[in-house]
Amino acid sequence: MTGYWHKQVDQGRRFVLKIESGQPLLGKLVEFARSVSLRHAVVVSAVGSVRDVAFRGIKAGAKLPITPPRMHRHEVAGPLELVGLTGNIMPDGKGEPDCHLHVLAARSSGEVIGGHLFDATVFATCEIVLSELEGEGLERHLSKQGGIPTVFIQEG
Amino acid sequence: MTGYWHKQVDQGRRFVLKIESGQPLLGKLVEFARSVSLRHAVVVSAVGSVRDVAFRGIKAGAKLPITPPRMHRHEVAGPLELVGLTGNIMPDGKGEPDCHLHVLAARSSGEVIGGHLFDATVFATCEIVLSELEGEGLERHLSKQGGIPTVFIQEG
Amino acid sequence: MTGYWHKQVDQGRRFVLKIESGQPLLGKLVEFARSVSLRHAVVVSAVGSVRDVAFRGIKAGAKLPITPPRMHRHEVAGPLELVGLTGNIMPDGKGEPDCHLHVLAARSSGEVIGGHLFDATVFATCEIVLSELEGEGLERHLSKQGGIPTVFIQEG
Repeated sequence: MTGYWHKQVDQGRRFVLKIESGQPLLGKLVEFARSVSLRHAVVVSAVGSVRDVAFRGIKAGAKLPITPPRMHRHEVAGPLELVGLTGNIMPDGKGEPDCHLHVLAARSSGEVIGGHLFDATVFATCEIVLSELEGEGLERHLSKQGGIPTVFIQEG
Repeated sequence: MTGYWHKQVDQGRRFVLKIESGQPLLGKLVEFARSVSLRHAVVVSAVGSVRDVAFRGIKAGAKLPITPPRMHRHEVAGPLELVGLTGNIMPDGKGEPDCHLHVLAARSSGEVIGGHLFDATVFATCEIVLSELEGEGLERHLSKQGGIPTVFIQEG
Repeated sequence: MTGYWHKQVDQGRRFVLKIESGQPLLGKLVEFARSVSLRHAVVVSAVGSVRDVAFRGIKAGAKLPITPPRMHRHEVAGPLELVGLTGNIMPDGKGEPDCHLHVLAARSSGEVIGGHLFDATVFATCEIVLSELEGEGLERHLSKQGGIPTVFIQEG
């Protein structure tokens, strides 16, 4: 029992993706992943602007598992500068691409807000760099302990 | 009409770059890119501290295109921890390296601020990891619709 | 005198690492690096949630070197969404893996806080993607001018 799981993966394809103004960020990312059969990937970089950002924070003092009453949902009209988009794409139990993304967005005041991304609409542009990870035994499933979907790694 | 553009690129060179205390972050990044003929690259990571950070936010409720009256310019003396630097280097219409970078910086209070980076001075140090992207048909031009320069991708 | 130092490195191994709930984030990252003999690496992505986050900010108006009276230490119980983890692993003077990491975490309110990470405990999960950098002449040492450990690059 080490407290962590790991897997060495191979570097696969690398993509530059530009999502256009007015498009749903998460929906288009999933649509793109399907169109090029991208099973495992990591967001290396994302820069642009967004509006109508919906995301989640965890309530202070919350215990596991993370259930809806322990979350706080935010919807911010913006527009805001997209200052960070962190996360990965892993296949779910049915082999479909599942995104786990956390967003960082800057208000006009300069204040940065963010959390677990539900969705956002691209404002002016969104330039994303994706790296494919090649490996087997990496899937996202619901964690009963955590209450949220997370990567399960089959080591070896 | 899919709502996005994409291009598969090859993994090129990888660099560790350390910009010294007192130097202009953006100016040195461009100078470095020119010195090694880096046309397309992505910032994988940047960690350090900055002072005299100038950046832009988009005003709440703003419409496209993003024009100066719809932006809010910030100048923060700091120093601040550099907690994120996201973006890419693409050639502009003349083939010169053009950086599109968004900055995240932490105040003494722990509050994080950020937006579209104009420039910053390195405070104690700045350690950057850059990945070169090899491909043709990727250039940054002014978007008339968006009001800002963005990546134009020639697919195929 | 260019004001920066750089080194071209080779792309080494790539790892997906999942640190389990209740584990110390930094301690487990170092333990993992030692177990696979990872000397130089960069955090490409980290997404999850944390609690008991300890980090540092630099006081506004502080001068170099960064000494303890010029820092502000924060300890936040949370839990919080982990919205960014930026930095690298480099060998220290004894060849031991040394992490320089800056953290970004989102409060329930959506407000993002962060700075130089001292440590954090994984809340529900923490999914990390690491890229190994292969090269010699890259070590972290204390900078007398800066007051903090930083990467020293032996060029050429």
